[in-house]
Amino acid sequence: MAQKPSIPKGTRDFSPNEMARRNYIFDTVKQVFQVYGFQQIETPAMENLSTLMGKYGEEGDKLLFKILNSGDYLSALDGESLQQASSTKLTTKISEKGLRYDLTVPFARYVVQNQNDLVFPFRRFQIQPVWRADRPQKGRYREFYQCDVDIIGSDALLNEVELIQIIDQVYRKIGLEVVIKINNRKILAGIAETIGEADRIVDITVAIDKLDKIGIEKVNEELALKGVTAQAIEKLQPILNLSGSNREKLDQIERVISSSVIGVIGVGEVRTIFDYLSSMDLKAELELDLTLARGLNYYTGAIFEVKSKDVAIGSITGGGRYDDLTGIFGLSGVSGVGISFGADRIYDVMMQLDLFPKDALSAAQVMFVNFGAKEELFCLPLVARLRAEGISSELYPDSDKMKKQMNYANRKGIKFVALIGESELESGLINFKNMESGEQQLIGIDDIVSQLKGL
Amino acid sequence: MAQKPSIPKGTRDFSPNEMARRNYIFDTVKQVFQVYGFQQIETPAMENLSTLMGKYGEEGDKLLFKILNSGDYLSALDGESLQQASSTKLTTKISEKGLRYDLTVPFARYVVQNQNDLVFPFRRFQIQPVWRADRPQKGRYREFYQCDVDIIGSDALLNEVELIQIIDQVYRKIGLEVVIKINNRKILAGIAETIGEADRIVDITVAIDKLDKIGIEKVNEELALKGVTAQAIEKLQPILNLSGSNREKLDQIERVISSSVIGVIGVGEVRTIFDYLSSMDLKAELELDLTLARGLNYYTGAIFEVKSKDVAIGSITGGGRYDDLTGIFGLSGVSGVGISFGADRIYDVMMQLDLFPKDALSAAQVMFVNFGAKEELFCLPLVARLRAEGISSELYPDSDKMKKQMNYANRKGIKFVALIGESELESGLINFKNMESGEQQLIGIDDIVSQLKGL
Repeated sequence: MAQKPSIPKGTRDFSPNEMARRNYIFDTVKQVFQVYGFQQIETPAMENLSTLMGKYGEEGDKLLFKILNSGDYLSALDGESLQQASSTKLTTKISEKGLRYDLTVPFARYVVQNQNDLVFPFRRFQIQPVWRADRPQKGRYREFYQCDVDIIGSDALLNEVELIQIIDQVYRKIGLEVVIKINNRKILAGIAETIGEADRIVDITVAIDKLDKIGIEKVNEELALKGVTAQAIEKLQPILNLSGSNREKLDQIERVISSSVIGVIGVGEVRTIFDYLSSMDLKAELELDLTLARGLNYYTGAIFEVKSKDVAIGSITGGGRYDDLTGIFGLSGVSGVGISFGADRIYDVMMQLDLFPKDALSAAQVMFVNFGAKEELFCLPLVARLRAEGISSELYPDSDKMKKQMNYANRKGIKFVALIGESELESGLINFKNMESGEQQLIGIDDIVSQLKGL
Repeated sequence: MAQKPSIPKGTRDFSPNEMARRNYIFDTVKQVFQVYGFQQIETPAMENLSTLMGKYGEEGDKLLFKILNSGDYLSALDGESLQQASSTKLTTKISEKGLRYDLTVPFARYVVQNQNDLVFPFRRFQIQPVWRADRPQKGRYREFYQCDVDIIGSDALLNEVELIQIIDQVYRKIGLEVVIKINNRKILAGIAETIGEADRIVDITVAIDKLDKIGIEKVNEELALKGVTAQAIEKLQPILNLSGSNREKLDQIERVISSSVIGVIGVGEVRTIFDYLSSMDLKAELELDLTLARGLNYYTGAIFEVKSKDVAIGSITGGGRYDDLTGIFGLSGVSGVGISFGADRIYDVMMQLDLFPKDALSAAQVMFVNFGAKEELFCLPLVARLRAEGISSELYPDSDKMKKQMNYANRKGIKFVALIGESELESGLINFKNMESGEQQLIGIDDIVSQLKGL
């Protein structure tokens, strides 16, 4: 009868302490989003497959979790088509819904569907899980949360600036030192155009992306292998050798790609963003990084990525501008820009650097030991008093052995234990024990309230 | 190319104002749960079907959303078995996972799986969506949130008392007048035993449950139809005719079922709970209601249900004690008690009674009008200042026509608009407009901060 219980691979349970830390991250980003005037939405876990399919490439289609139609889903199929069916073909006949793969496509669908009710520019954030049938591995899950913030319906570069401010604010609050890397798709297009290889923008970007890892010689070799002409590679060298401050880099690029209209526009956009930011008191480091590509087919302007300075881990936040996200659903000409915070990686970095505040844990602050019926009755109004003051408290529900009760408080990380036995009943005072220091005081409930509220 | 976008039937998008109101409910219950020392957990949206199947009855099995195995899921099947397959049989071969149907079974699975790491009694809460392939209809959705709070690993009736306190606290905060109905499975068993129909406890309870709607004559008829003897029906009459206060009712029942050991224990439990509560300052009305059955096969002791006094709608909170929830997963002898808040119904009731605080809406408090590049630059540090003070603010990102910008503020429900044009640039003062009253002031940023923080 008894099954050994387990959960699907690649999924996780979150226990109280993990949840408390995760909530610390979610609450922090949410608070920043809200103070910047962004509003929360939620979309359903299930979307129609017609909404999802074809939006994430062929590989993405395979990684969608598909939901079996309800009821007698085979009844509409004849035996023959069933016998001949491949998995792929059968799927289209027995499944119409899939689980959300990211928050961006559902957001685009939402905007198009609600275009008449929304006020543009629409500033929304969304914090929800997404599901991908990826092969599970360390740090990669089949269910994970994304925290997305986007402005849709405005071309202004001020929006890019605000997103960078948001990144800065979030990591400042969290106490994490970060580099915000900035690039622009238009500059990449300008580079490809300048070297006479406008169609090879993807190959060129992929090669540039490896510069840090494999060095300039190997990058040149790879470009040649991809069929980029020697002349074009020659022209690319100043860009591969960029150095100096962000402004110096911008000046150098502008000189190289000055004949590309789109490239010059891209440089101008990045310059404007840096101009805005120069008057703001950012803590994060800003870096123009031409090797930054991220979902290149997707972004049309700014591209952002954030890395931790102290922990070697992939991008912890990323995003960019997309000029025609809602076009796939029939609403064209609406430009958007957005970023996504990766809660799982941020969690890992914060754990590694011990950045979670100790009081982000979730146990009650005070536990009253239960010595029996009479003492319990005496404790009840005291517990109620603490709770009314917003001090999380509990009364151990059974009059178990003292040792068991203290062990409970200890293992849960409860900071204070209130002991009320015979002598305390008589004196009306509470034996109040600090579980960390071991210090005990005989005090009244008012003193407990003022001590704890003073913390 | 363009698809007309839609979402699966029975699912919903939540727009900013709906989200803000829903968060008001979630935040309220969460805050109460936490001050009572409950800790949050989360479980995956997907569970193994072996965990879910058979836990919700035959009907429940059908209502589970099942997830198609990834990859070439047909490859393991031979053509013959495919051709002969019924939907039900095929499902077991092509689907191993399902979406969470409630929070209780995943919680039981979690407790068993983590029994060595948990500290018992374990006080947990969980706020997550669940999915059911029910026929969608008004007020019934295929995706909806549950807010569950349970104590597992303690028999003490104090736990029942705390859950009632939590119900009282939540509805007090929300401003909703409620009746908390209490029953006990042991009393129902005692009644069935007393009238000599111990095996017919379900039939009897179903009949009693209809008392309010169809009256005592019809109830008696129905019992006779179900095969309950005339003698037993006769014995049942005093219970159907119960009247008076909760204590009077308890006394009457106790007299009738005094020969049933389990019945007397049940009466004793309810009496103890009322005793505890009598010294507490509850706002909610408590009512002993013998017709309350709710998932009878499930509960073994206390049964709770909460109804709004002012809106005719089903139960808005419910729960009870279950002595062997984790037994299905191989851990027996662990008693639990819990309740679940129905966020959707609470939402509907609150809308109907206009109980949401006006400031539960989510728009920024202040919008700065954008008159152009120069004014924008002047505004940026002012917006930053307000945000640093925790006042949610935005600067309209484009220098659109004034009318468009004011319309934006209006439609979003932004309370204050800051206008900084030529003359304000010169004076350094801000033309600050209250969008509700229309009142305008020429003031400095410090005054704005102190006015808004004083609100």
